[in-house]
Amino acid sequence: MKKIDTLIVHADLFTMRGEGVGYVEDGCVAVDRGRIIEVGTTAELAGEYDPIELIHAENKMVLPGFIDAHIHTSMSMLRGVAQDTKDWMLKGVQPIRYYLKQDYCPEASYINVLEALASGTTTFGEYAPIDHLNLMEVFLDKLGVRSNLAAVVYGWNTLKKSYGVDELFELDDNYTRDVLRKNIDLFYKWKKPDSRTNVMLGVHAPDTVSKEMLLVCHEAAVKHDMRIHMHVAQGDRETVQMLKRYGKRSIPFLDEIGYLDSRLMAVHLTDATEEETRLVASRGASMVLCSGSIGICDGIMPPAAVFQDAGGKVALGSDQSAGNNCNQMINEMKLTAMYNKIKYGDPSVMPAWKTLRMATIEGAQAIGLDKSIGSIEKGKCADIIFIDLVTPTMMPVIKKPFRNHVPNLVYSARGSEICRVMVNGRTLYRDGVFTTVDYKYLLNEFKEKSEQFFEETPWDFDILKESTGWLMQQKEQL
Amino acid sequence: MKKIDTLIVHADLFTMRGEGVGYVEDGCVAVDRGRIIEVGTTAELAGEYDPIELIHAENKMVLPGFIDAHIHTSMSMLRGVAQDTKDWMLKGVQPIRYYLKQDYCPEASYINVLEALASGTTTFGEYAPIDHLNLMEVFLDKLGVRSNLAAVVYGWNTLKKSYGVDELFELDDNYTRDVLRKNIDLFYKWKKPDSRTNVMLGVHAPDTVSKEMLLVCHEAAVKHDMRIHMHVAQGDRETVQMLKRYGKRSIPFLDEIGYLDSRLMAVHLTDATEEETRLVASRGASMVLCSGSIGICDGIMPPAAVFQDAGGKVALGSDQSAGNNCNQMINEMKLTAMYNKIKYGDPSVMPAWKTLRMATIEGAQAIGLDKSIGSIEKGKCADIIFIDLVTPTMMPVIKKPFRNHVPNLVYSARGSEICRVMVNGRTLYRDGVFTTVDYKYLLNEFKEKSEQFFEETPWDFDILKESTGWLMQQKEQL
Repeated sequence: MKKIDTLIVHADLFTMRGEGVGYVEDGCVAVDRGRIIEVGTTAELAGEYDPIELIHAENKMVLPGFIDAHIHTSMSMLRGVAQDTKDWMLKGVQPIRYYLKQDYCPEASYINVLEALASGTTTFGEYAPIDHLNLMEVFLDKLGVRSNLAAVVYGWNTLKKSYGVDELFELDDNYTRDVLRKNIDLFYKWKKPDSRTNVMLGVHAPDTVSKEMLLVCHEAAVKHDMRIHMHVAQGDRETVQMLKRYGKRSIPFLDEIGYLDSRLMAVHLTDATEEETRLVASRGASMVLCSGSIGICDGIMPPAAVFQDAGGKVALGSDQSAGNNCNQMINEMKLTAMYNKIKYGDPSVMPAWKTLRMATIEGAQAIGLDKSIGSIEKGKCADIIFIDLVTPTMMPVIKKPFRNHVPNLVYSARGSEICRVMVNGRTLYRDGVFTTVDYKYLLNEFKEKSEQFFEETPWDFDILKESTGWLMQQKEQL
Repeated sequence: MKKIDTLIVHADLFTMRGEGVGYVEDGCVAVDRGRIIEVGTTAELAGEYDPIELIHAENKMVLPGFIDAHIHTSMSMLRGVAQDTKDWMLKGVQPIRYYLKQDYCPEASYINVLEALASGTTTFGEYAPIDHLNLMEVFLDKLGVRSNLAAVVYGWNTLKKSYGVDELFELDDNYTRDVLRKNIDLFYKWKKPDSRTNVMLGVHAPDTVSKEMLLVCHEAAVKHDMRIHMHVAQGDRETVQMLKRYGKRSIPFLDEIGYLDSRLMAVHLTDATEEETRLVASRGASMVLCSGSIGICDGIMPPAAVFQDAGGKVALGSDQSAGNNCNQMINEMKLTAMYNKIKYGDPSVMPAWKTLRMATIEGAQAIGLDKSIGSIEKGKCADIIFIDLVTPTMMPVIKKPFRNHVPNLVYSARGSEICRVMVNGRTLYRDGVFTTVDYKYLLNEFKEKSEQFFEETPWDFDILKESTGWLMQQKEQL
């Protein structure tokens, strides 16, 4: 018998191999030195291995960890701010974000990450201003999760408290250049075999970087062979800027300057037409879909179904708790399935299993890490999650004449059914306990610092009054 | 100092009084013999009372219990069955439901109720076949919750394994008459002062009861002064039956036979036109909206916003776990807000606080029990829930310059933040523990009986094959 670190036996195993969900009845997974070394049935494999840790997974659904391809933890202090409002970004959030210093309360961001981890997220596509990113790279690494970082490379050196909806942003190329350099440095810092930290180039958006610097960024991406993590066609706000600055919408503009290729991971596509969506997909770019945040902030279901129909790969992202308002992939899967059904008026559109693929193997393909994560297959990293099936939201558990695990996970589960989360074979969360950080301490720090922040900030009520969301929350809650 | 049963102090209190959410800072609620006897601030009231139980509600959001106006627990064995399919009811669920005996596994239904209770539901609008209802009336009473029962009064004496989409149902008036009588008996059984159990007349739908019996039912409702709980314009399936049988759509037909009045609680309105919706509201009927189930089963957001715009009151319902797939009102509030934003393409439509009113005070008005429940006000029943605010999904907690409790509850919470649920002043659930039933025993019975059911039933695969949802789950999960 071969000595190994961990053997998982008797699982309801969903490997996500192949074209569906890759089910293995009475499944078994052998893990050694952070990698999956064998996958099969318990009958086939149990006798072959002598593990240090034997995990009995009876009545557990076992899956690859979820991938959150796009998360801004730097806005974690703003959950529930300016909800149900138009012009969410410029009129709703900006008057508050203006006062947020990046290092004021890192615990807010840490707690958002723990919220996600406890709900099964193992890969974090953190997309943040460089100072915040430097904080998060350390935390994510210490926590033990996988991360796919990108610095927000933009020309917004200073921001005002509020903007007119058609007011052109001032862009500072020197600032862009400085952040670009830091993003590239970060890339080389973490570029090593078996690194849990991957770095992409975070070109912010077509309207927040000057055309000259967009070209410089793309050149750098080619030179260093980096993939680009970029907001594209984020909404009417961006389209207004693009039309005013260049007389072109975002996607035709990006096409003209050579951005539409397999290097690009395009986030949102909220305001993309069907034709533009198909163009982006046909050029080999991937898409990140943030159903939760775009639904709340814009009332829109982005064209992910069209993107997939055109052959593109789509990952899911929780975006930020200031707009979403939560960071968990079960929520993203459910809303993705449901908003599409509502959008197309057809309950058979975007079935549960397709959204589960977007949170796992298709997501891994979209972020370019499918060689190491996204499915439970021999040779891949052991990023594995366990879901308790003896819990009201997952019952009954039907195995014959068909299975109901996947629709129940996507449509019924809340996140608390997840009982164990493993990254690189190491258990980071189990039955409510985080093994690598002091959760209660962080939660308490977040509580105290956030109370202080909201009490002490000298709010500018003249500007706050411009947000319908703010006014509503003040008035209607009386 | 007045001796009382319970005093709740230092709460972030949302009474739901008035036109908004009725916030009281550092709130205090005095409870005695199941009733709320005083509401105010802790400073005003704490010195006045000498309670047996003093509940410290620091860092807790305190609200009236949620009202689930429409729940079919008789389908609790079918969670996750035939998902993502067209013709969900006739082709998807019916081939399985056909084999379900009402008393096969009552624990399935009990667990659904506990799932809801732990998520803050205190009033259950159970709508079930009479045999199942007789089972549930006992369980709900023993559990200690409030219920608003209705027997399913219909002409479906026997059901086939599957139906053609335009096949007229056979209706048995004798069967309808028999159930009607039992429904009325139940009404008188529970009609007493301070009863936790209320009974409505459950006329099933315009297409499942003959016209003659519809008239008999309405006469009975008037004679006994009962309100009517009825599916109306449930979808294209019903419209097909109505056009074929009467040459009229459901709502014009019901108008003609005198059903549209303040006695009627119309469930779904999935297939109602805007004009029909306004007609129902203008006649003083109320509406029950089941966003979760109608979204999954039909891909439709029913016209609740139009109904409210026409002056009607709307309650929320979780319907059944076979279609929804969960029974919790936070889910219903969130989906109601979000589907409306997606439907109208506007993030300011259906704000969080409006959906919270639908789950509480507006829901109580819609089911006709607003004199006793729906808000925390002097004289009402003490159905009160507590939400832990020191938890990632509810943080930060902002009190100035505005409050974010309500958007965070609706958009971010998952249900597990609810730490105490009280009905008539009695704590039925606290920190994961049910005080009146043996949860683990029931869960285990559900597990064993459901495994047995799905293994032993002689499935008719020729009929199952007609459901696209079934085939997909069999094929794609390979």
